[in-house]
Amino acid sequence: MCELLAMNCNTPTDISFSLTGFVKRGGETGEHADGWGISFYEQNRVRTFLDTAPAAHSHVVTFIQKYPVRSLNVLAHIRKANIGDVTLRNTQPFERELWGQYWTYIHNGDLHDYYPNRYSFYHPVGETDSERAFCVILDSLQRQLSLSSSANQVRDCLQDTITSLAQYGIFNCVISNGVDMFVHKSSKLHAITRAHPFSTATLADEAWSIDFTQVTQPNDRVTVIATHPLTTDEQWLDLPVGQVIRLSDGVLHI
Amino acid sequence: MCELLAMNCNTPTDISFSLTGFVKRGGETGEHADGWGISFYEQNRVRTFLDTAPAAHSHVVTFIQKYPVRSLNVLAHIRKANIGDVTLRNTQPFERELWGQYWTYIHNGDLHDYYPNRYSFYHPVGETDSERAFCVILDSLQRQLSLSSSANQVRDCLQDTITSLAQYGIFNCVISNGVDMFVHKSSKLHAITRAHPFSTATLADEAWSIDFTQVTQPNDRVTVIATHPLTTDEQWLDLPVGQVIRLSDGVLHI
Repeated sequence: MCELLAMNCNTPTDISFSLTGFVKRGGETGEHADGWGISFYEQNRVRTFLDTAPAAHSHVVTFIQKYPVRSLNVLAHIRKANIGDVTLRNTQPFERELWGQYWTYIHNGDLHDYYPNRYSFYHPVGETDSERAFCVILDSLQRQLSLSSSANQVRDCLQDTITSLAQYGIFNCVISNGVDMFVHKSSKLHAITRAHPFSTATLADEAWSIDFTQVTQPNDRVTVIATHPLTTDEQWLDLPVGQVIRLSDGVLHI
Repeated sequence: MCELLAMNCNTPTDISFSLTGFVKRGGETGEHADGWGISFYEQNRVRTFLDTAPAAHSHVVTFIQKYPVRSLNVLAHIRKANIGDVTLRNTQPFERELWGQYWTYIHNGDLHDYYPNRYSFYHPVGETDSERAFCVILDSLQRQLSLSSSANQVRDCLQDTITSLAQYGIFNCVISNGVDMFVHKSSKLHAITRAHPFSTATLADEAWSIDFTQVTQPNDRVTVIATHPLTTDEQWLDLPVGQVIRLSDGVLHI
């Protein structure tokens, strides 16, 4: 299995604090050592960094920590391979363009014997069940909706498709187009929203406490999504099973 | 205008030598200081590094030089913005998935008043003429061919589409699916093929000579494409105007 990390905010935010704890689980405090990746949305474009090395020992992590990217939407994934070789083509996040927007996606779970009969437009490059599902999700959006569809219509379409996919196995995922973010839990996924009044937080996987009052503005609002809570002294919400939930501007529309 | 650099090889090769000279033109020996990007094909996946900073002073260049990627196909671009803001979404290379392959593209030129009536499937995210043309090129491939089409059929389709595009202005470009590479010159594009017996080469933009006999095997074959020759002591081929030329395994099929 794998672990997921995502962040949706109302102001460009540095994910370094959460990322530092998360990557430790990629080969140090956790067993997810078969590569990792992270996508940052910046000005409608996505910068994705991928590595087949364990996240806990990746030069790419060091680079990102040295030159942090401030972003409204970030998706990251540490992998423990179960379907598909440990190669870059099977390393998440995956990305495709739809309606002139870059869509990114991370998935944790197993889809058993899931081989779609055909793809309309989006085709997998690698061999993972995760990427096959992503192509089916985007095909359904492309077939049923358009750029002018509302975020709630997108949510409803995702709900239909992901409910079908979840019949094949565990399906925890995060999808974003750089404006909205959509999450679905079938077994494990947590969220925390940080907003005024800010407090302190302490990582679970690394000796690092942060006082958010020192690094935020009163109007800042950030929601972090993670497979397992990343901090020990905050109340993470255990997301409801089976619902596609939309996030925008740091708000979890639950 | 911009400058292009690309490499196609029969064995995974480090592009550091060529890249070191090339990036100097991004704000030091050249005026192309409005961002830059590079795509490396690795195991069917593409790793793309983008930066809006001038290539000559980019932290990303330093990172790539420190941890060089060996690749069969590389495309790089330094930008001098003429159409579209200096933002990541307008920074090349551009990338899309077609037939389960990642396709990447770099373009140098100006297309005057080029606004396609409609896009079938691929849509631009940014505002450049370059990206509009890329979407039209991929739409034409998707409409007319399939994954089982031969490389020569792809070449012929590209020739038709790019010949039409070149009516709107200057169109120097490189396109690759990670197996084959296709290049088209309308004003400036040069090539050099390095193969046994290897010799030495000296960069034009930086004090660096390399003895390729020390870093190659007898069967290695590498073709480098560049807007202007990158070395002073090799015979670069000035590519013919108006022809889409295919490269594979380091061979220029001219």
